Amino acid sequence: MQAVGLITEYNPLHNGHLYHLQQAKQQTGADCTVVVMSGNWLQRGEPAILDKWTRAELALQAGADLIVELPVFFATQPAHLFAQGGVEILSALGCESLVFGAEHPELDFDQLATALPDDPQAFHQYNATFATQFNTVLQQTTGVSLTKSNDMLGFCYYLANQRLGQPMRLVPIKRQVADHNQTTIKDASLFASGTAVRQAARAGDWAALAPVVPAATLTQLQTQRLQQWADFWPYLQYQLLTADVTQTHQDDQMAEGLEYRMKEMVQNATSFEDFLHLVKSKRYTYTRLQRVATAALLQLTTAEVQQAQAHNYVRVLGFNRRGQQYLHQVKKDLPLPLYTKINKDLRLHGLELDYRAGRVYQLINEQPQDLYRKPLIHLA
Amino acid sequence: MQAVGLITEYNPLHNGHLYHLQQAKQQTGADCTVVVMSGNWLQRGEPAILDKWTRAELALQAGADLIVELPVFFATQPAHLFAQGGVEILSALGCESLVFGAEHPELDFDQLATALPDDPQAFHQYNATFATQFNTVLQQTTGVSLTKSNDMLGFCYYLANQRLGQPMRLVPIKRQVADHNQTTIKDASLFASGTAVRQAARAGDWAALAPVVPAATLTQLQTQRLQQWADFWPYLQYQLLTADVTQTHQDDQMAEGLEYRMKEMVQNATSFEDFLHLVKSKRYTYTRLQRVATAALLQLTTAEVQQAQAHNYVRVLGFNRRGQQYLHQVKKDLPLPLYTKINKDLRLHGLELDYRAGRVYQLINEQPQDLYRKPLIHLA
Repeated sequence: MQAVGLITEYNPLHNGHLYHLQQAKQQTGADCTVVVMSGNWLQRGEPAILDKWTRAELALQAGADLIVELPVFFATQPAHLFAQGGVEILSALGCESLVFGAEHPELDFDQLATALPDDPQAFHQYNATFATQFNTVLQQTTGVSLTKSNDMLGFCYYLANQRLGQPMRLVPIKRQVADHNQTTIKDASLFASGTAVRQAARAGDWAALAPVVPAATLTQLQTQRLQQWADFWPYLQYQLLTADVTQTHQDDQMAEGLEYRMKEMVQNATSFEDFLHLVKSKRYTYTRLQRVATAALLQLTTAEVQQAQAHNYVRVLGFNRRGQQYLHQVKKDLPLPLYTKINKDLRLHGLELDYRAGRVYQLINEQPQDLYRKPLIHLA
Repeated sequence: MQAVGLITEYNPLHNGHLYHLQQAKQQTGADCTVVVMSGNWLQRGEPAILDKWTRAELALQAGADLIVELPVFFATQPAHLFAQGGVEILSALGCESLVFGAEHPELDFDQLATALPDDPQAFHQYNATFATQFNTVLQQTTGVSLTKSNDMLGFCYYLANQRLGQPMRLVPIKRQVADHNQTTIKDASLFASGTAVRQAARAGDWAALAPVVPAATLTQLQTQRLQQWADFWPYLQYQLLTADVTQTHQDDQMAEGLEYRMKEMVQNATSFEDFLHLVKSKRYTYTRLQRVATAALLQLTTAEVQQAQAHNYVRVLGFNRRGQQYLHQVKKDLPLPLYTKINKDLRLHGLELDYRAGRVYQLINEQPQDLYRKPLIHLA
């Protein structure tokens, strides 16, 4: 069996994702689709609207064969680290190709890559986002800049794959939504951005949602508790009010001095949005601030995140018969640990950070996220 | 002017406290009553049912002349440290006497004290509560044991006063409630325990409460949000779920190994009571566990508590004209810092722990506890 890999968030799964899955099979002729999906906390530093099990279930129903979790220490990171985590897992699972959506699938990544410095640390030296530094160098050397988030992410997949010796063939496909951040659902369209879908779901605008998401997604959005940052704001506030500033300083992705600003602004902030607005300055993007807030909420330190990133794993969330067969085929040579159930040792050690992230999510969602959970199995 | 001091919690102020105030004036003939009162967190490791400002207001209405806050780093401590903090403040304020309620006012503290070892560290060496160690030694040397909590507390006042060179005359008075932990209000009685009063207040049993509390207390209990541990349980749970065990280990009054037990039991506990029940063992009293939980909730470390205890202060919560005159009389020679309003410097430094404790309390109570607050002044 040959497999194609996808790196996803499915927040929540909509028609654009269905198209992505269909194209992945069609364009590669693979027998099996392997989906790496963020768990309960996402790349833009926010909680998923539906928990990872619900989203994995929707992925299975949408035709994915094997779903594994992107650990929180990669899922809540800037594009290059998010990409690294996902590519490592798909490569470990022996995927032959990686299909991803891009705004400009015609971009020549080989050419762009030659323009970059060899030193992977080159982008860690400045006080700017990775994307900004990256684009500055690209612009200077090639005249091209990757302003669209999925082009950028695609290039990060490319670089991560290159670093591993190019185990996978990369297949960009044209995204079916013009703008990732488009916030409204267009009439008579089958596609809408995740932002627009979440907004309509929170407003209960089911009529607008029905054409742009699978029926199963619609049902889940109608029946489950929908999570958002506002739900976790009391905990973040509590944490920033009580933690010593030297402790907050150690939170992952914290910038020098930002810990004082956050601890100061939390005193009078009336909501999470208000807090972000108060903390925001030219130095930090909203996404960066959300990621730092996520690290503060989950008490993820830079040290433990970096240590965990050196110990990636394959955590299975679900599979169908084809996924099961594929897993059986690859698991004897798997270069990463394979986790299907969580025991006390894993909770305290190997899966500690994912467990912690899930436990905080569970404070609102009230559904166990790790203990007593086993992979979803669709053997129909 | 001569002043008499009282060390109190007023959780909430009831007829037993009124009697204490009246007796304090009557038995000493003092011109002014100085009340040191715990802030929002109490000696048994729990939040006050009403906030410190409401309780200070009730104290003024009950005839107290000057009310100062016992800082959280003394207020949430075992009896000997609670006593030390209160006695230091009253002594600093030049009180001539200290009047306290006791189950057995006839006890001869001078005689008991001679039986104790001189070394104040003698009771810090064992893994048992201070009270237990203390009583073991007393029993062995004098045949007396202080089994009643107010006798014990009184003896701690005696020792703290002795350590300061006996600046105050100690006046024990017989408590008007037989048992401190009595949980029901007796018919036709004017007195009930704090426990019984709180229980009736939470049940909204105003008819039972009316005879045993001043009218002002009844009104406050009927109109304010009543705090209890259950309100803070989500935050404690969150904290124990996310904090690293080495961090939890540093929480004040933590016992060796207890941090693991707490982090383990919080996984499945369904409420604060359930949590305490799961953690409880012969090694720890419920009160000890509640104090550790308070430290964990407020993120108070042993190191910062001990450091703060070496820097006691006089934080004024309220006064009437007599209290104002008395404060004016003593403030030029005050051996401790006097704080009436909180500014940014005090919030970040001198009053940091009280500010933090108040800020957590405010998460439920929603009334600013320190910022923008100034002493209550009754100049009628």
